[in-house]
Amino acid sequence: MKLKMLYSFLKTDIDEIEKELNLAIESDTALLKDASLHLLQAGGKRIRPVFVLLSAKTGDYDIHVIKNVAVTLELIHMASLVHDDVIDDAELRRGRTTIKAQWDNQVAMYTGDYMFARALDYMTIIEEPIAHRILSNAIVELCIGEIAQIEDKYRFNQNLRDYLRRIKRKTALLIAVSCQLGAVAGKVPEEVHTRLYRFGYYVGMAYQITDDILDFTSSEEELGKPAGGDLLQGNITLPVLYALKNEELAPKIKKVHEYTQKEEMSLLINEILATDAIQKSAQLSQLYLKKALKELDALPPSKAKKSLRDIALFIGKRKY
Amino acid sequence: MKLKMLYSFLKTDIDEIEKELNLAIESDTALLKDASLHLLQAGGKRIRPVFVLLSAKTGDYDIHVIKNVAVTLELIHMASLVHDDVIDDAELRRGRTTIKAQWDNQVAMYTGDYMFARALDYMTIIEEPIAHRILSNAIVELCIGEIAQIEDKYRFNQNLRDYLRRIKRKTALLIAVSCQLGAVAGKVPEEVHTRLYRFGYYVGMAYQITDDILDFTSSEEELGKPAGGDLLQGNITLPVLYALKNEELAPKIKKVHEYTQKEEMSLLINEILATDAIQKSAQLSQLYLKKALKELDALPPSKAKKSLRDIALFIGKRKY
Repeated sequence: MKLKMLYSFLKTDIDEIEKELNLAIESDTALLKDASLHLLQAGGKRIRPVFVLLSAKTGDYDIHVIKNVAVTLELIHMASLVHDDVIDDAELRRGRTTIKAQWDNQVAMYTGDYMFARALDYMTIIEEPIAHRILSNAIVELCIGEIAQIEDKYRFNQNLRDYLRRIKRKTALLIAVSCQLGAVAGKVPEEVHTRLYRFGYYVGMAYQITDDILDFTSSEEELGKPAGGDLLQGNITLPVLYALKNEELAPKIKKVHEYTQKEEMSLLINEILATDAIQKSAQLSQLYLKKALKELDALPPSKAKKSLRDIALFIGKRKY
Repeated sequence: MKLKMLYSFLKTDIDEIEKELNLAIESDTALLKDASLHLLQAGGKRIRPVFVLLSAKTGDYDIHVIKNVAVTLELIHMASLVHDDVIDDAELRRGRTTIKAQWDNQVAMYTGDYMFARALDYMTIIEEPIAHRILSNAIVELCIGEIAQIEDKYRFNQNLRDYLRRIKRKTALLIAVSCQLGAVAGKVPEEVHTRLYRFGYYVGMAYQITDDILDFTSSEEELGKPAGGDLLQGNITLPVLYALKNEELAPKIKKVHEYTQKEEMSLLINEILATDAIQKSAQLSQLYLKKALKELDALPPSKAKKSLRDIALFIGKRKY
């Protein structure tokens, strides 16, 4: 079962958005276009546009309006990836060299800025003031989340709350807002768009926890980048937090910045996998998914509702 | 005569904006707050907020609304400075170490992102959809302008049009938009806010040309950074474009990337000063100022109109 099958009835509209994304990054500046295209062509799940469309389906669905919101969210996501790669000094993303690796940090910074600016441009088609307030608030939190991630690196005494707040800002909020803004653009009542916000928030939390698990359980080939990369960069993700409770393992984890050999890192990953860290992380992810599904209960039955449900369930089981 | 004297009747409101700028960058993330404050406290002319206020005075002036627009414009300007310093690898700005020098490129990138996000947040108080379209368009152009500046570095065969388009995107548009958005927030008729847009555009062009002249004619002490820095970094500004027409000087200018000694650079600057490059640049700046003043003619007499006129004239004569 592939993710795309879960919303196959949206295929025409998703294709339309893909076309629009290509138009969005058009520029008479060759460098800017090349760098943006480099990232766009690396693909991605386009999960945020899918959530925008499905949520809009709960209200008045006009693809000519909605597609702008979908493009906005995907461009903001892409812009944040480009800047993330600068922060993380990452060489690979989705199996491709990153913009910062292919060009340099400066080009990556400005390509991200440009994508971000274009995102705002697309959003101006939406006149509802509340939509702009929702989006700008999410962007502020996204930025704070990134800085917090720098500050929290190698900080081994952080707790679960620190982690949850970080992934909320880094991932869950933008997915929550994708759902909410699709619904707002579909002119649904407040009760519905705040419900979809909560659905997106819970799904986003589950999604990021799953991502953090996969960084340990997947192969380099599946990830498109080296496994265990999060920990190697000092990012204390949920599996690490649980593994740190193991008194034997904790001192080894705290020395991760000294590891220079790939073999040392593989060994540490295997030791973490041998604890209950992954299992406990997966349990928390499932808890969030349950909460997400519960939010959907109150919505009337529809193809869109079924898709939202299926995607949430898929995220709980995804292996890549 | 100091710039501030030209709009002394706005002092209370300018102080209010300064306070609001301090609030805007408040953050529970220490790194983010320190870095933002570092730049904020370096000061600056706050020329964009002044233009916002003065333009708003041509319509319904409500400081509680207008201040948000002023803060937005200043924050966008500051964010672009922080990112500029990454691009230019600059160590000093306004006589202080830059954020990228004091911390690093990554902190500078995210501090800029954060200020930018906060700027958008402040803007959401304005409900007029046209205001958001005007702003997002200017931001897109600002980003393109920065990338174009990288591409155009050390490109000695560029022409006047390339330069003018670059400074339009880099400086003039944001000043134009400061004037226009102040007026839009003041609910003036379209004819008035497009006129103020043009006024701001012409003033902005003159302002940047003057800046580019001062980079040659001012001392390191006055600039708060080394003189001739633009050329040393490969930025082909207007005085350089004119100096390149001098057949004897052109080959020396084209070798600027080889210059490693401060003395070599000083010598080159003196040779450029000995041509008509500065004079011709100043003439073009004056031409833009004339156009700016002409736009004001149609406005009814007011304190604000007088201030706008005085500031434009001041910019034509400023020595720092």
